[in-house]
Amino acid sequence: MHLGLFILGTGSHVAGWRHPGAMTSFQDFNQVQEIARIAERGRFDLIFMGDNLYADPGAHPSYTVRLEPMTMLAALAAGTSRIGLGATVSTTYNDPWSVARVFASLDHISKGRAAWNAVTTASGQGAGNFGTVHPDHASRYERAAEFVDVVKGLWDCWADDAIVADRATGTYIDTARLRALDHAGTFFKVKGPLNIGRCPQGQPVVLQAGGSAPGLALAARTADVVFSVVQDMDEAKAQYAALKKRLPAHDRSPEHVTVLPGVMPVVGRTPTEAREKLALLQSFVNGSNALQLLSDRLGQDMTGYDLDQPVPEIALPDTYHSFARVMLAKARRENMTLRDLYDLVAAARGHWVLCGSPEQVADTLQQWFDERAADGFNVMPPYFPEGFDDFVDLVVPILQERGLFRHDYEGETLRDHLGLPRPPSRFF
Amino acid sequence: MHLGLFILGTGSHVAGWRHPGAMTSFQDFNQVQEIARIAERGRFDLIFMGDNLYADPGAHPSYTVRLEPMTMLAALAAGTSRIGLGATVSTTYNDPWSVARVFASLDHISKGRAAWNAVTTASGQGAGNFGTVHPDHASRYERAAEFVDVVKGLWDCWADDAIVADRATGTYIDTARLRALDHAGTFFKVKGPLNIGRCPQGQPVVLQAGGSAPGLALAARTADVVFSVVQDMDEAKAQYAALKKRLPAHDRSPEHVTVLPGVMPVVGRTPTEAREKLALLQSFVNGSNALQLLSDRLGQDMTGYDLDQPVPEIALPDTYHSFARVMLAKARRENMTLRDLYDLVAAARGHWVLCGSPEQVADTLQQWFDERAADGFNVMPPYFPEGFDDFVDLVVPILQERGLFRHDYEGETLRDHLGLPRPPSRFF
Ligand SMILES: Cc1cc2nc3c(=O)[nH]c(=O)nc-3n(C[C@H](O)[C@H](O)[C@H](O)COP(=O)(O)O)c2cc1C
Ligand SMILES: Cc1cc2nc3c(=O)[nH]c(=O)nc-3n(C[C@H](O)[C@H](O)[C@H](O)COP(=O)(O)O)c2cc1C
Repeated sequence: MHLGLFILGTGSHVAGWRHPGAMTSFQDFNQVQEIARIAERGRFDLIFMGDNLYADPGAHPSYTVRLEPMTMLAALAAGTSRIGLGATVSTTYNDPWSVARVFASLDHISKGRAAWNAVTTASGQGAGNFGTVHPDHASRYERAAEFVDVVKGLWDCWADDAIVADRATGTYIDTARLRALDHAGTFFKVKGPLNIGRCPQGQPVVLQAGGSAPGLALAARTADVVFSVVQDMDEAKAQYAALKKRLPAHDRSPEHVTVLPGVMPVVGRTPTEAREKLALLQSFVNGSNALQLLSDRLGQDMTGYDLDQPVPEIALPDTYHSFARVMLAKARRENMTLRDLYDLVAAARGHWVLCGSPEQVADTLQQWFDERAADGFNVMPPYFPEGFDDFVDLVVPILQERGLFRHDYEGETLRDHLGLPRPPSRFF
Repeated sequence: MHLGLFILGTGSHVAGWRHPGAMTSFQDFNQVQEIARIAERGRFDLIFMGDNLYADPGAHPSYTVRLEPMTMLAALAAGTSRIGLGATVSTTYNDPWSVARVFASLDHISKGRAAWNAVTTASGQGAGNFGTVHPDHASRYERAAEFVDVVKGLWDCWADDAIVADRATGTYIDTARLRALDHAGTFFKVKGPLNIGRCPQGQPVVLQAGGSAPGLALAARTADVVFSVVQDMDEAKAQYAALKKRLPAHDRSPEHVTVLPGVMPVVGRTPTEAREKLALLQSFVNGSNALQLLSDRLGQDMTGYDLDQPVPEIALPDTYHSFARVMLAKARRENMTLRDLYDLVAAARGHWVLCGSPEQVADTLQQWFDERAADGFNVMPPYFPEGFDDFVDLVVPILQERGLFRHDYEGETLRDHLGLPRPPSRFF
């Protein structure tokens, strides 16, 4: 089983920062470093940082301010030794040469622990910061497909042995062992090569988090790890099977793509204690804020609706497509009112909430793993550090005891942790 | 006196990496960290990393590969405690929202030690990596002027006290204490604010390194530190006076802009030992490589000329304008042949070479400082670590003894080291 830790703001619960055991700043590097060290103590495969490109203090107050992901991860590389370091960087608001370069650099700095979550950027709220208009869903994914190909091509332009630095002859670089990419496509013209040599992992790990049809197609072709949003095991099994089935067509082995559904664990020593913890967290929620968040996640203004009526029929939005789909399906299955749905969104922003004793939580995770609904989980603690300590100190040891999860790191790089081979360069 | 350390590749001497005491990789973070720690031991104000956006193994073999500056500095922030951390980020190949954000992040991570060298990018060789054409000198500076203004505006959009994180009331952000920028100019439309709060320094320090007329105009209006390229004290004095004279028109005090000419010190225990060190370094130079570098610096192909004739009359290039101007002026003054000039470029890529005993080097630096040719120096060691240890262990103690340079850091932030006040936000 593989475990990733999701970090973005002060924790995945909308109001988790109000808990007395919570840190309240996600701009304070010392606090972020403490989180990373807990994850490394828990032998997690990786830390993964979400990102978006705007400030929205209305819908996402405690998610609004953060360190920029690449500088944050580079600083964490210096303060950790084994854990993988992943970040979201948008294919819609960046250029591929710069993205290939910065992840190669992180891979060198961390000695092979870098991972890129290539997202198309769901929300259009950032477009105004770039003087542009947010492209539609289909165009975003067309651009993303070419973007990822260019980045991977750039990572292959230097042979592993191109830098010789031979004092005797004075040859620093063997120019026969690097080449241009000379890409000219629909969205990009990129000459290459990079101004950094091939990285320790050959290629940094690529993550993908889009759940729509083009999102899945991109993942099947290019991603090493897939984050998914789920609310139900059968749904997760179907998604898992659908993705794995597509891999052979791309000459990829099902073991080489790791599927990690997101889960917010709320762990108490007993089932009652866990329920009380969740109730306490929910008591911190401010209603108007939760309704703004729900509107954001569903892609339409929900403030006019009666909270105590069933969730109304609404069309799937262009943004946050998978969140809306999964939440609405759950609402139908369980006859939820709009208030129930907003409680759910307030808890984990649309992700799955798993509340229980350590054994209950471990049992459920094991069941999902055994029944091939997941290769592991993207753990989204409600707040830090206590809400994460609970998982690492109470649940991880059970998973280890059951032989489901590593007792210690066995390799050096993130590819090692994930059981992924180091890819050779396509050119050398 | 203020001291900055310039780092880019394996050292400023073209072939310094061939020295037996030299490190040969600038991609190995452990080696970079060792350099930073020597600089901090020497109580330097800052480390400053140059950058460009292409690989050119012909003209710049040992300058071709490097860690990406922002990730490198963020990792160094974790491994150092006081030294300022500056990097070159181009105003021609980036967007202001992202640049404002990443430097604000570095400032948070380093607790107030970030500095941005805003360059227009001299060489057009990188344009092909971005599918674009390098703009001309004048357009680059027009864009740069607006770019710097937008970045500084974005740094002011959050009041220092906007993040309240009040557990009792549930208010995380006081939305009255942040605002949009709503910039709409010739080159950029940027809404703002950033998704990171105001930084420890209020605004990171801004560096500028352009020596042309628009470069100086931009520096006078916006820069806290100016790097210059010099070969002669009288010339340096004239430049220094010209810059300082322009400051009052921008309501800026002359003490609040620090002028640091670049210097490559070659230090021996005796004058003879120093000369022998330089001769050894020069013996490593490969002629055809030096001629390529000279062509690059002068902006035209110099391979056809007779090396033993005086430097020919050539027009000042659009790129590397100040390097060419300063080198050609020196060649005229000293009746240099083309071979003399290429020896000079091979030594320090167009920067000033200062070779001598520790006392001689300290005397010259003091003279420049006393005569108002400089507020300090941008030190460019020929190779690392030995070529830098020489300066820190032999020259810095003399400067300290003479009361010219600090014995220890007195403040926490780079602004403290430079004697610059923390600017209030223009909006709050
Ligand atoms: C676990 C998870 C994490 C995500 N993280 C980000 C993120 O950090 N930034 C972002 O813009 N979108 C993020 N997304 C959104 C998706 O990448 C995608 O843009 C969105 O779901 C719309 O694409 P889709 O229609 O393919 O699902 C995330 C989605 C999931 C499931
Ligand atoms: C000390 C110093 C450092 C510089 N560092 C960089 C650099 O890292 N990257 C870059 O593209 N240009 C660099 N430059 C070049 C200038 O920023 C500028 O682009 C060039 O000199 C042309 O502008 P000018 O005509 O105003 O001098 C540097 C110049 C000096 C003097």
